[in-house]
Amino acid sequence: MDGKSSSNTVGKPIRCRAAIVRKPGEPLVIEEVIVAPPNPREVRIKIICTSLCHSDVTFWKLKHPPAIFPRILGHEAVGVVESVGEGVHEVVEGDTVIPIFLPDCGECTDCLSKKSNLCTKLPFSVSPWMDRDGTSRFTDINGETLYHFLFVSSFSEYTVVDIAHVTKIDPATPANRACLLSCGVSTGVGAAWKTANVETGTTVAIFGLGAIGLAVAEGARLCGAKRIIGVDVNQDKFEIGKKFGVTDFVNSRNCGDKTVSQVIIEMTGGGADYCFECVGLTSLVHEAYASCRKGWGKAVVLGVDQPGAMLTFSSFEVLHSGKSLMGSLFGGLKPKTDIPILIKRYMAKELQLDEFVTHEVDFEDINKAFDLLIGGKSLRCVIWMNK
Amino acid sequence: MDGKSSSNTVGKPIRCRAAIVRKPGEPLVIEEVIVAPPNPREVRIKIICTSLCHSDVTFWKLKHPPAIFPRILGHEAVGVVESVGEGVHEVVEGDTVIPIFLPDCGECTDCLSKKSNLCTKLPFSVSPWMDRDGTSRFTDINGETLYHFLFVSSFSEYTVVDIAHVTKIDPATPANRACLLSCGVSTGVGAAWKTANVETGTTVAIFGLGAIGLAVAEGARLCGAKRIIGVDVNQDKFEIGKKFGVTDFVNSRNCGDKTVSQVIIEMTGGGADYCFECVGLTSLVHEAYASCRKGWGKAVVLGVDQPGAMLTFSSFEVLHSGKSLMGSLFGGLKPKTDIPILIKRYMAKELQLDEFVTHEVDFEDINKAFDLLIGGKSLRCVIWMNK
Repeated sequence: MDGKSSSNTVGKPIRCRAAIVRKPGEPLVIEEVIVAPPNPREVRIKIICTSLCHSDVTFWKLKHPPAIFPRILGHEAVGVVESVGEGVHEVVEGDTVIPIFLPDCGECTDCLSKKSNLCTKLPFSVSPWMDRDGTSRFTDINGETLYHFLFVSSFSEYTVVDIAHVTKIDPATPANRACLLSCGVSTGVGAAWKTANVETGTTVAIFGLGAIGLAVAEGARLCGAKRIIGVDVNQDKFEIGKKFGVTDFVNSRNCGDKTVSQVIIEMTGGGADYCFECVGLTSLVHEAYASCRKGWGKAVVLGVDQPGAMLTFSSFEVLHSGKSLMGSLFGGLKPKTDIPILIKRYMAKELQLDEFVTHEVDFEDINKAFDLLIGGKSLRCVIWMNK
Repeated sequence: MDGKSSSNTVGKPIRCRAAIVRKPGEPLVIEEVIVAPPNPREVRIKIICTSLCHSDVTFWKLKHPPAIFPRILGHEAVGVVESVGEGVHEVVEGDTVIPIFLPDCGECTDCLSKKSNLCTKLPFSVSPWMDRDGTSRFTDINGETLYHFLFVSSFSEYTVVDIAHVTKIDPATPANRACLLSCGVSTGVGAAWKTANVETGTTVAIFGLGAIGLAVAEGARLCGAKRIIGVDVNQDKFEIGKKFGVTDFVNSRNCGDKTVSQVIIEMTGGGADYCFECVGLTSLVHEAYASCRKGWGKAVVLGVDQPGAMLTFSSFEVLHSGKSLMGSLFGGLKPKTDIPILIKRYMAKELQLDEFVTHEVDFEDINKAFDLLIGGKSLRCVIWMNK
């Protein structure tokens, strides 16, 4: 489709390449697919590049519902608007946009409030459809329906996204940086900035130094945290963490007969002001809560645990500790207002994004991106659709 | 001791009357006791009046540790300084003061911070002693040690309290109103004002309309809450609640096949902005959390459950709901700075205290105060030491 001017494609189905998962855990196959034109309130986007996030891997491997196949995964991306459906006034053909899994309808109580990023009109789910009408815009060349993923499905040269899931950005932003803000990095930075509202001079502890944990460090660094303690089982993460402001490291496998929270309480003389769980393990949420400073500590849950996982706290501790427990979806960010702020801060050389991109591959090599992330070798691997 | 000028008593033991619990659940007996002079950093207070709180009843009935006997209960009171120990400069003889179970040492990180009311130097506990040296200031006439309660022991004509537990107040404050601010009413008002920081125009749900729950309503009313939903098993509480700003009532026994949270979510179109658990039941904490508005709801735990009680939440809900869970001890108030503010607001006729006092008795009739509270007949019964 390269070079085709959109005037040729507006209102028509587009035939282009997409990476499809037909069976759980099997290598993605690049096939030709048909991408329908956008319905009302939808936008068809030509993807420039996309990056691989752990949720893509989780839903690639998952054998049971909500997994469903054949599916086009991918939800961290940046692209250019190819055409818009009826009633779309927010963006026009040629605009540079980021598709985002979290909707921002701009109309409901939540979207109109500064306090919530959880749209009521289009509630977040892992539905395999477009979220307004429950249908797909993708078919393979045999006419078989291909399922969407997180309302984005960016592992395709073209995708259709509801306008509630589209944020317009400055086209000067390098594409292989902008795509990171579509999910993981924004989630981490936002958790420190918006959810916890980290104050200058404070101490932060981060459980798990993957891309999200490192993004929390970056957010905490931007907020002026004085001390940022990284916790991980992999000692190498300390060196990586230093780039994002991590000042201290606790190897949770080397705590002897102490718990991680005991070590952190000793290091900090009472606990960290903010503790972030970025792995998705209830046991670590408990350690994060226990590592919080009494009186004002905030424990923030970012990690996604297995369905049905339960968190248990002593009623006495909740009452007597003065601590708060909170969750953070997309870092508490409101996509359409907060992502442009993060882009500005990147362009002003305040927010670091470059350091998250450890690898870049062509679309044909998308399976390499999976190998790198699964092998713990990459933070973010950018996949270029047509370099 | 009435009429005795303090110049006669300074530095000497005082013989006076106190109500003593010798065995759990048995009527208090008024006996003569010996109250030692204050040690350094301590204050001896002549109690004017004291009010009965549920915690007094709990520790009166409790048969096992941390219960201990013989003990002088009572922790909501107001009095006049009879004499001060070495190193006490904050108050002098004749000052009107409120003793408060929660310490405020004025020196540790927490007491110096605006964010915490959980003193590190003298950590709160239910110790039967003075908290700095672990001894008692009370003996009976046979020389037997009498135990303290919550660092106050106000069921005595005179008591000795550490200066960290003493707040000086405007002597013009009516005594039978001031004493309420020593514990329960402050806890409720503070939970709305300080812990939750209730915003104007919001919706509040309160689980349990005892004195603390009603005080939460009063605090929420002062903060400008638009709608205050009271939840109780006793329908009569609605009429009482109206005096404190309760606008709606949910009788938790009349919800049919719905849970209380389902009813509240329906009433409010999504949940209350703030939910307060004031009973001390984990099941109600779960209902309070479930009744919170997604996106920004705060669940605040005030009720004291049995030791060992556990709170369990779905990891998914914590992550995806945008809600916060927090505890509130003494309503998050810092005794020495916040109680004088509440007193001013009472004197300015903003804060309602009069309505909490449903009964008043003479010291000799202290057991009636227990009967009234246990029978659910009183909110607060004021006990006058020497009317």
